[in-house]
Amino acid sequence: MKRGMTRRIQHASQTARLRIRIVFGDAAMLGPGKADLLEAIRDTGSIAAAGRSMGMSYKRAWMLVEALNSAFRAPLVDAARGGAKGGGAGLTQTGHEVLAHYRSLEVIMAEAGADRIEALRAMLGDMSGRK
Amino acid sequence: MKRGMTRRIQHASQTARLRIRIVFGDAAMLGPGKADLLEAIRDTGSIAAAGRSMGMSYKRAWMLVEALNSAFRAPLVDAARGGAKGGGAGLTQTGHEVLAHYRSLEVIMAEAGADRIEALRAMLGDMSGRK
Repeated sequence: MKRGMTRRIQHASQTARLRIRIVFGDAAMLGPGKADLLEAIRDTGSIAAAGRSMGMSYKRAWMLVEALNSAFRAPLVDAARGGAKGGGAGLTQTGHEVLAHYRSLEVIMAEAGADRIEALRAMLGDMSGRK
Repeated sequence: MKRGMTRRIQHASQTARLRIRIVFGDAAMLGPGKADLLEAIRDTGSIAAAGRSMGMSYKRAWMLVEALNSAFRAPLVDAARGGAKGGGAGLTQTGHEVLAHYRSLEVIMAEAGADRIEALRAMLGDMSGRK
């Protein structure tokens, strides 16, 4: 970031973002990367395109989809969907529900923790852009 | 984990754990690893011992401490502390405050999100140990 930007812009870039990961037992987990991938699959209708939009290799996108599909009782991503377009992918009902729960958790938790997150942000030093 | 354990124990291992990371701007972040390291420094009185207790190299423990110390307005870890023991380290007032805020956030957010985390857990498949 260039020097000489106003403090206001520096301050805006200092907004605290919350990243939540839920670890189930020893194996399954759901975090921001998988949530963003589900969302991108929903929006692009393709695992390959979703991975590309996140700068992720096709192989990695598939591995994450397979991890999600095997962790939950029902698959989250249906790779056979896409209808007329062919080769597409979409979220199943379970996929939509899991994504909705995760996005709600982000909102609920950010609200619940807002005061303490702001207290932490206020303790940051000048080097981090705080005025 | 051995086969043949009761379902009840399998179910207990399936408890959902929440991992929170707060990202400030583009640089500073605070997550479970740094929080655990601060706690271990507080408890062991030594950066080296704290790192060892977490299976972390001395170099990595120091890098994390330096990242924390430079991100906040005041240092979180005082490496000169330790008194008679010499060479010890301890948390500063700021360090204690940051750790307390983070641990409180874990509790507050887990409570706020309990219903939705349980809903996600209930959607997990048998392969993840769910009965």
